Amino acid sequence: MEHSTAGSYVTTGQEFTRDTNYITTRITRDGADGYPVEPGRYRLVAARACPWANRTIIVRRLLGLEDAISLGTPGPTHDARSWTFDLDPDGRDPVLGIERLQDAYFARFPDYPRGITVPAIVDVPTGEVVTNDYAQITLDLSGEWVEHHREGAPDLYPEHLREEIDAVNRRVFTEVNNGVYRCGFAGSQRAYERAYDRLWTALDWLEERLTDQRYLVGDTITEADVRLFTTLVRFDPVYHGHFKCNRNTLSAMPALWGYARDLFQTPGFGDTVDFEQIKQHYYIVHTDLNPTQIVPVGPDLSGWTTPHGREALGGRPFGDGTTPGPVREDERVDPEHTPLR
Amino acid sequence: MEHSTAGSYVTTGQEFTRDTNYITTRITRDGADGYPVEPGRYRLVAARACPWANRTIIVRRLLGLEDAISLGTPGPTHDARSWTFDLDPDGRDPVLGIERLQDAYFARFPDYPRGITVPAIVDVPTGEVVTNDYAQITLDLSGEWVEHHREGAPDLYPEHLREEIDAVNRRVFTEVNNGVYRCGFAGSQRAYERAYDRLWTALDWLEERLTDQRYLVGDTITEADVRLFTTLVRFDPVYHGHFKCNRNTLSAMPALWGYARDLFQTPGFGDTVDFEQIKQHYYIVHTDLNPTQIVPVGPDLSGWTTPHGREALGGRPFGDGTTPGPVREDERVDPEHTPLR
Repeated sequence: MEHSTAGSYVTTGQEFTRDTNYITTRITRDGADGYPVEPGRYRLVAARACPWANRTIIVRRLLGLEDAISLGTPGPTHDARSWTFDLDPDGRDPVLGIERLQDAYFARFPDYPRGITVPAIVDVPTGEVVTNDYAQITLDLSGEWVEHHREGAPDLYPEHLREEIDAVNRRVFTEVNNGVYRCGFAGSQRAYERAYDRLWTALDWLEERLTDQRYLVGDTITEADVRLFTTLVRFDPVYHGHFKCNRNTLSAMPALWGYARDLFQTPGFGDTVDFEQIKQHYYIVHTDLNPTQIVPVGPDLSGWTTPHGREALGGRPFGDGTTPGPVREDERVDPEHTPLR
Repeated sequence: MEHSTAGSYVTTGQEFTRDTNYITTRITRDGADGYPVEPGRYRLVAARACPWANRTIIVRRLLGLEDAISLGTPGPTHDARSWTFDLDPDGRDPVLGIERLQDAYFARFPDYPRGITVPAIVDVPTGEVVTNDYAQITLDLSGEWVEHHREGAPDLYPEHLREEIDAVNRRVFTEVNNGVYRCGFAGSQRAYERAYDRLWTALDWLEERLTDQRYLVGDTITEADVRLFTTLVRFDPVYHGHFKCNRNTLSAMPALWGYARDLFQTPGFGDTVDFEQIKQHYYIVHTDLNPTQIVPVGPDLSGWTTPHGREALGGRPFGDGTTPGPVREDERVDPEHTPLR
């Protein structure tokens, strides 16, 4: 798993299989799992580099949960043991006081056997991890934290569209979000070629779907767009070359490239993306794919801020809601790591 | 050196330096070095995968020297010892009768200390290598073999343009032909970044030069175009991802992409290019860059045969000469390995 910390990614002769066992404890209004919704109590730990973590940073911001749930950001590279807070002063998360995310996992499960993954939500009073179940985390930020959303927060998972969103998400997860990893971590030429065909079949389907339609489901931004976006934004910088997803670049797919730029330029999306951390993560951590650990200078990112023309397709990004305000001073992406100015 | 057979390509902490010592014996009309021009006597050994060898295959065909100089083609991958004739029946070159190109090198120099490189010209009667000095080989095919050129052969190195061709070739060699290797084989992040900057400075210069001008020097195809073409044709399939030359794809550079397609579609250029062998060579041989040895399926090659519109810039590809005829039956590129139909 890329967002975990296993030391080796490719198993010779094998297809890549993601470990999809997570800590499924939920933070809910009714506190059924022992962790009730409570502003100020939890810390979201999410490395900007990681696509699964990036989802949670986007949703937290779209919904205006910055005051209710604080954010800890491990650096882009991790060792075999854990994601680390190496970007923070003294290498410690300033709220949790730990150097390694694994400490929060071990605080709750001393013999935790699986990968130490981001995103994770930590219960600040006890220092224990609550959940790392990324697929549920964003849905719960929408559904359980609703009383703490900002005024004008969009409904990212509207009741009447859930069936369609779930169906799109399933295909996007297996074929695209995870599909790029299946290409990159394939342990044989045959497994890679099968993965490549599956990925491009799905991208062609998305290209067609997004040709006449501004967003994936309905006419506003939903959870489905968040999940596709975090893969698309990493496509040309990482997946195209490093994972050999190279039929063509994202920027050569007119609808997908317009769609990705449209979202990138929407407050809450592009302003969470740190391209430098993204590249560092993949190219430095996966030494079995890139033993030199040299990080590419490219691609040129200036295209991300060019006009996309997608307004012509209609749609209202935030529906009856409003655009989120500026990013908090202390959560801004390094201006050297983004084409946003 | 990529076209040699050294086992390891990246030296940690070092810039990549190409060994530019070659066997400088020449085949000339006056036979000054002991090897006079003589049709049927020599065999050109040139792997289709290798850009330096590809030059000689193109020039031999443009000049119509197929009957005068035969062609042996080692397969795309080689071991630490030598390029091998693994594509030929029984794994032996049918004319030289050897399995490994190194046998021709050792026949002349029993202690030959440097890499066994292609292209090489072998003296068939003795089985000894004559020269592997690729920069001189193509110039001598033009200048020394003139009596054996086909009728209508172009002048690829015209007297009145030599100074300009030489100047362009020098910059293209150091910054582009070798520049991509300097990126790919950089032994440190710093060396890579310097190499990347040099490469893109040169590609921007070429993009500008070729915006209003159909060919690099003068208004016909010359040696300068042959030398740039063999790097450009490998750019998106290999150098962009494998060597991290990824500011953008060739296909995103309008003038260079039009120019490359124009040449590709000109008989003598694209019909010598085997994209599959090219990819296999780099991705399988450079295990210190690609330890999985998985060969990418992409990029999509269909763009190579699309209209390029460069005729509008004027120019006469073959000047007062004519287009070469079809490729000899026994020298055709596998139709599965090319978008030419």
